[in-house]
Amino acid sequence: MNDKFNIYTDLAVESKERFKGDNVEISGVEVYENIDDVYEVKLTKVEITSPEGAKIMGKPMGKYVTIEALDMIENEGDNKRKKQLGKMLARELFYMLPVRKKEELKSLSVLVVGLGNKDVTPDALGPYTVANLEVTRHIFMLNHKYGKSKGISAMIPGVMAQSGMESAEMVEGIVAKIKPDVVIAIDALAAGSSKRLNSTIQLADTGINPGSGIGNRRKALNKETLGVPVIAIGIPTVIHAATIVRDTMEQMIKVLSELTNMEGNAGFEMLRAFDDNEKMNLIMELMDEKLVNMFVTPKDIDESIQFMAETVAYGINLLFSLTHR
Amino acid sequence: MNDKFNIYTDLAVESKERFKGDNVEISGVEVYENIDDVYEVKLTKVEITSPEGAKIMGKPMGKYVTIEALDMIENEGDNKRKKQLGKMLARELFYMLPVRKKEELKSLSVLVVGLGNKDVTPDALGPYTVANLEVTRHIFMLNHKYGKSKGISAMIPGVMAQSGMESAEMVEGIVAKIKPDVVIAIDALAAGSSKRLNSTIQLADTGINPGSGIGNRRKALNKETLGVPVIAIGIPTVIHAATIVRDTMEQMIKVLSELTNMEGNAGFEMLRAFDDNEKMNLIMELMDEKLVNMFVTPKDIDESIQFMAETVAYGINLLFSLTHR
Amino acid sequence: MNDKFNIYTDLAVESKERFKGDNVEISGVEVYENIDDVYEVKLTKVEITSPEGAKIMGKPMGKYVTIEALDMIENEGDNKRKKQLGKMLARELFYMLPVRKKEELKSLSVLVVGLGNKDVTPDALGPYTVANLEVTRHIFMLNHKYGKSKGISAMIPGVMAQSGMESAEMVEGIVAKIKPDVVIAIDALAAGSSKRLNSTIQLADTGINPGSGIGNRRKALNKETLGVPVIAIGIPTVIHAATIVRDTMEQMIKVLSELTNMEGNAGFEMLRAFDDNEKMNLIMELMDEKLVNMFVTPKDIDESIQFMAETVAYGINLLFSLTHR
Amino acid sequence: MNDKFNIYTDLAVESKERFKGDNVEISGVEVYENIDDVYEVKLTKVEITSPEGAKIMGKPMGKYVTIEALDMIENEGDNKRKKQLGKMLARELFYMLPVRKKEELKSLSVLVVGLGNKDVTPDALGPYTVANLEVTRHIFMLNHKYGKSKGISAMIPGVMAQSGMESAEMVEGIVAKIKPDVVIAIDALAAGSSKRLNSTIQLADTGINPGSGIGNRRKALNKETLGVPVIAIGIPTVIHAATIVRDTMEQMIKVLSELTNMEGNAGFEMLRAFDDNEKMNLIMELMDEKLVNMFVTPKDIDESIQFMAETVAYGINLLFSLTHR
Repeated sequence: MNDKFNIYTDLAVESKERFKGDNVEISGVEVYENIDDVYEVKLTKVEITSPEGAKIMGKPMGKYVTIEALDMIENEGDNKRKKQLGKMLARELFYMLPVRKKEELKSLSVLVVGLGNKDVTPDALGPYTVANLEVTRHIFMLNHKYGKSKGISAMIPGVMAQSGMESAEMVEGIVAKIKPDVVIAIDALAAGSSKRLNSTIQLADTGINPGSGIGNRRKALNKETLGVPVIAIGIPTVIHAATIVRDTMEQMIKVLSELTNMEGNAGFEMLRAFDDNEKMNLIMELMDEKLVNMFVTPKDIDESIQFMAETVAYGINLLFSLTHR
Repeated sequence: MNDKFNIYTDLAVESKERFKGDNVEISGVEVYENIDDVYEVKLTKVEITSPEGAKIMGKPMGKYVTIEALDMIENEGDNKRKKQLGKMLARELFYMLPVRKKEELKSLSVLVVGLGNKDVTPDALGPYTVANLEVTRHIFMLNHKYGKSKGISAMIPGVMAQSGMESAEMVEGIVAKIKPDVVIAIDALAAGSSKRLNSTIQLADTGINPGSGIGNRRKALNKETLGVPVIAIGIPTVIHAATIVRDTMEQMIKVLSELTNMEGNAGFEMLRAFDDNEKMNLIMELMDEKLVNMFVTPKDIDESIQFMAETVAYGINLLFSLTHR
Repeated sequence: MNDKFNIYTDLAVESKERFKGDNVEISGVEVYENIDDVYEVKLTKVEITSPEGAKIMGKPMGKYVTIEALDMIENEGDNKRKKQLGKMLARELFYMLPVRKKEELKSLSVLVVGLGNKDVTPDALGPYTVANLEVTRHIFMLNHKYGKSKGISAMIPGVMAQSGMESAEMVEGIVAKIKPDVVIAIDALAAGSSKRLNSTIQLADTGINPGSGIGNRRKALNKETLGVPVIAIGIPTVIHAATIVRDTMEQMIKVLSELTNMEGNAGFEMLRAFDDNEKMNLIMELMDEKLVNMFVTPKDIDESIQFMAETVAYGINLLFSLTHR
Repeated sequence: MNDKFNIYTDLAVESKERFKGDNVEISGVEVYENIDDVYEVKLTKVEITSPEGAKIMGKPMGKYVTIEALDMIENEGDNKRKKQLGKMLARELFYMLPVRKKEELKSLSVLVVGLGNKDVTPDALGPYTVANLEVTRHIFMLNHKYGKSKGISAMIPGVMAQSGMESAEMVEGIVAKIKPDVVIAIDALAAGSSKRLNSTIQLADTGINPGSGIGNRRKALNKETLGVPVIAIGIPTVIHAATIVRDTMEQMIKVLSELTNMEGNAGFEMLRAFDDNEKMNLIMELMDEKLVNMFVTPKDIDESIQFMAETVAYGINLLFSLTHR
C-alpha cells in the first residue's frame, strides 16, 4: 500500500469499502454506520487507531465522519435539503471541536481556510464556502458589547500558480499572527466512485495531508504543522481519470469471464490476480501520461459546487454566526 | 456510424485519423497538410465534399481547418506565442469570411457568439473570448465619421439552466433583429486525445451542429437555421470520459496480446473484432451511467482557457478592431 | 420640467415628495400610502393618470409601487428580512401581472431581463438577480408531465460596450423569437436621497424608459416597443453626483439664512428663488463636466447588491418556481 | 491640519497643489516636475523631508512620484499606451527598490499585496493587478536551474467583512513566514479632483498609512510594522462625496461674488474666510451623514480599472518576470 493509493480516493469510507469484500475486520480500523431515515442520510464513522490501520487505509490515524445524502440531490435550488445537510454537518462538526458545551463556542477563535482554486469550478468548494460564511472576528473585536466572544475569521490562500506560495505556508503565517484555537480547512476531494460525487461530506480531525485534494497539496495542514487542531471538511467533486478506467476494466473482466471461456487463460488470470494497487499501476502505465493528472467532473458542476458550498457554510454559520445565535 | 460517434471527437482532423491506419483514401474527404516551421504550427485542411464523406466522418459537409501548435504551450503568459497563433487564426478566418479583399472587412457586419457556460471553467472558452473582444458596432453606428463601417457585435447566450432557452433560439432572435452578414460562433470542444487539448484551434464553415461541444448543443447554428453563414471557431478543452476508457483498453488489449497466448481465445477475439463504434457502445454499457456524461479536464484548465480565449480574441480583433486598423 | 429632471430620481415616490411641501394635490397624480407594522414596511402607490401628471412627475403614465424597508437593513446575512421583503414583492408583482388568479401563473410565459453591467457593482442588480432565479421554461418544454405550464426564461443583455448592441435591441430580438406573455425587467436605479438607497423596491407597469437607470438606457423597453406588458422592478443603488451637491447647498442656504443677515442680499435671493430644475442646471454648470456623469455609491455596495438581488429573486421564485409550488 | 485632511486626497501632488496658490514654498517639501513629450506624461516628484512638511501635507515623510498621463486615455483597449505607462512605472519602481543594478533584481524576494475589495469595482485595483502578475517564487524554489533567483509572490488579503482580519494583520503574518526583501502594496486611492481619476499612478516609499485608500485602512503597512521596505503603488479611482460638494461650492462662491454685491455680507465673508479644513468640516456637518462615507466613481469604471490593473502588472512584470528577462 503505497502513496499512489491516495489517487484512488480521499474518502476514508471508500478506502474501507475496498476491503469489505474480504469480510474480515481490519485491525486498527473501527467502523460505525447509521442510517437517518428522517433526513435520508447515511452516517459512517471510521476511526483509524493504529499505524497498521493507517498503512492499510492509506490515511493518517484519526476520526473520519461521512454524511452521505441517500437521495439524489436533484434540485440544486432545494433550500430545505441544504438546511438538513447543514444541520447534520453542524452537529458532527461540534463533536470534533475542542469544546464540550454549546456555550463554549462563543469563546472559541476559529480560522476557516478555503483551499483550492476559485477559477477551476470543481476545485472551488473552499473559496465558494468562505464567500458564504458570516465572519465575525472583526465585529467582536471592535465592539465591547460582545465581551470575550472571539468569532470566525476566514482566508482563501489560492493556489501556488497565483500566489507563488504553498497554501500551507500562507496558513502557517496567518495562524502564527492571529492565533486561532482551531482551524477548519475546506477542500474539494477526489472520490473513488461517481455515486458519492457532490452528495457526501467528510469531516476529519486529521487535517489536510500531502497528496490529497484536487490540487495535490504538498505540505500538511495539521496539528503538527500549525500547532492547533485542524478539522478538515471535504466534499468529493472529481474522480481521477485512472479510477474510472480501472472501474470500467473491472466491469469488463467480470463480463468477459461470465460470457466466455477465459478461465485458465494466462493473460486473463494475470489480470485477475492483480490487487488494487497493481491494477492502478498497470493502468497508469497504459494511460497517456498527460491523463494521469487529469480529473473527471460532471457537466453541471457549477450548480453542485454552489449548492454544496452553501450547505457547508450554512452548517458552520449555524454554530458560530450572530444571526443564528 | 451513428451519432454516438460525435462522442469521440469534435475535431475533423481526428475523425480522419481514425481511418488513416487503413491507408485508404476516404471517398468524399480531401485532406491537405502543411507544417509552418517558423511558427511551429501544423495546418490541416479537411474538406468533406459528399454525403458519403459526411457519413463516414460523422460531420456535415464543409471545410475544416486546424491550427495545431507543435510546441507545448508551457508558459501561459507567453504573449509572443499568443500573437503568432492569433495571426494564423486571423488569416484562416479571413479566407472563410464572405469577402475577397481586406478593405471589404469594414463593411461586414459580424455577430460573435460566445457559446458555453462561463461558470464551468473548461466550457468557458466562448464567454471568455467575448470578454476580450473589441466590439465596435455601437461606436460605428453612433459616430458618422466611420461612414458605412459596420463593426462587431457580441453576445453570450449562456446555458439552458441559466436562461431557460436554447442558445440557438437566442441567437436566432438576435440575428433576426440586427441582421449581421456573418456569425462567428466560439465554442469549447471535446477531443479524442489528450495531445490536442488546449493547443489546437479548429475553424469550420459548417457552423455549430447538434451534439457537438461540451454542452451537447441540441439545435444547430448554421446557414440553414440562421439565414447567414456561420463560422465556428473551437478549441478542445475536454475529453469524454468514455474516450479515455476506450484508449486505455485498446492499449491493454495490445499489451495482453503481445505478452500472452490470447490469440484464439473467444472473448479476446470478440473484443478485438469490435469496430470503434461497437467498442464505444460496449464501454458505455460497462461504465457507470453517470460517468457517460462526465468529462476529463486538466488541473490547470483555468490558465489554458484564459490563454486560448485571449488568442482567439486577438485573432478576431486583428481583422476588425479600431486599434489595429 | 425637462428631461434633466430624471437625473434627480428614478423613484416616483421621490418625484412626488418634491411637490409635497406645497401641500397641494397634483392633478393627474394619485397617491396611496400604507404602513405595515408587522413587516416594518411602508407601501406607497403612485398612479399617474394624465399627461399633465406625467409631465409634472417627469415619468410616464402608469402605476408605481414602492416597498420601503423602515428598519435599517444592517445585517446583510439576515435571511428572515430577505424573505419578508421578497413576500411583499411577490404580492405586489402578482397584482401587476396579467392574471387574476394564482392558478393562472402556471400558464404565463415570463421573460426576466437583468439589465445593467455585471462588472460595475452598483449597476449589477439585474445580472445578480437573474443568477439567483430558478428558470423553468426549458424544464416545462422538455417534460410533458408539466402539461401547458410555461415557466420562466431569463436573459442578461449586458451593456453596449460589451455587446455593441442596445439592451433594448437584444430584448426585442428575443421577445420576437420566444413570445413571452410578459417581460419583467430588473434594473438598478438612481435615488434622490441616501435614505432610500438599497432599502427600497419600486415596481412599475410602465417598463423601462429612456434616461432611467444607472446606464441611462437610450431606448425604451415597454409595451409599445415589445408588444407585451413590461413590469419594471428597480432598486436605487446610486445617487447622481449633482443630487448630493444640490442637497448640501440647500442645507447651506438654510443654515446661512438662519445665522446671518442675508435676507435682502441680491445673490442670496437669486439663489433662493431658483426652482429645483434651475438649481440643478446651475449646479451642473458649476460642476466639473466629468462629474456630471459620475455616481455616488456606498463602500459596502457589494453586500447590499447581493442582499437585494437575492430578495428580488426570492420574490419572483415565490410566484413561479417549481420548488415553491 | 488634522487627519480629516486625508479625505481630500491620497495624492501628494494634489496636497501640494492646494498650497501652490500662495506661491510660497512649503518648508520641508521639495517638488520636481518634468514633462515627457514623447510619452505625453507628466512626472512629479514630491519629497517630504521634515515633520513640519509632513504635517502641512497630511502625509508621512518620504518620496512620492506621480506619473500622470496627459492625454485622455480614451480607448481602454490601447495596448501601446498600456506599455508606455507600464515602462514609466517600471523605471520609477526600480529607483525605489533596494537594489542598485538591474542584475540585482533577480536575487530580490518580492511580495506583492493587492489591497482592496475585488467585489466593489473601483476598489478592485489591487486584486485585479495581482491577477495579471506573473508570480515566480514557486518556480524558482522548485527548480534548481534558477540558482539563487528569488522571484515574486503575491497575496490578496480581501477586506475585513470577508476575512474578519485587518489586511495589515494578514500581511504581517505572511511577511513573518516567507521573509521577502521588499513589499509592493497596490491600492485604489481617492483623488481630490476628477481630472486625475484613472489616469495617474502614484508610487511612494512610505507604504500604506491609516485612513488612506477607499477602504480607509486602519493599520499601517510600512517599514515600521513589517520590518521590510514597503513601496505603495496607487491609482485614484474615486473621489470622496464631500470633495465634490466642496469644489462645487467654491465655484458657486466665486460666481456669486462676481455677479452680485456679496462683498461685506457677513455670512458670505464667513464662508470665504474658511480654510480648506474648515470648509470640509462644515460640509460634512451639512451633508447627510450616510453620504460622508460614500464615494463618487465614473460609470465606465470597469474598463478603467481593468486597463490600469494591466498597466501596473505590466510594469512589475517588466522588472521581474521570466518572460521578459
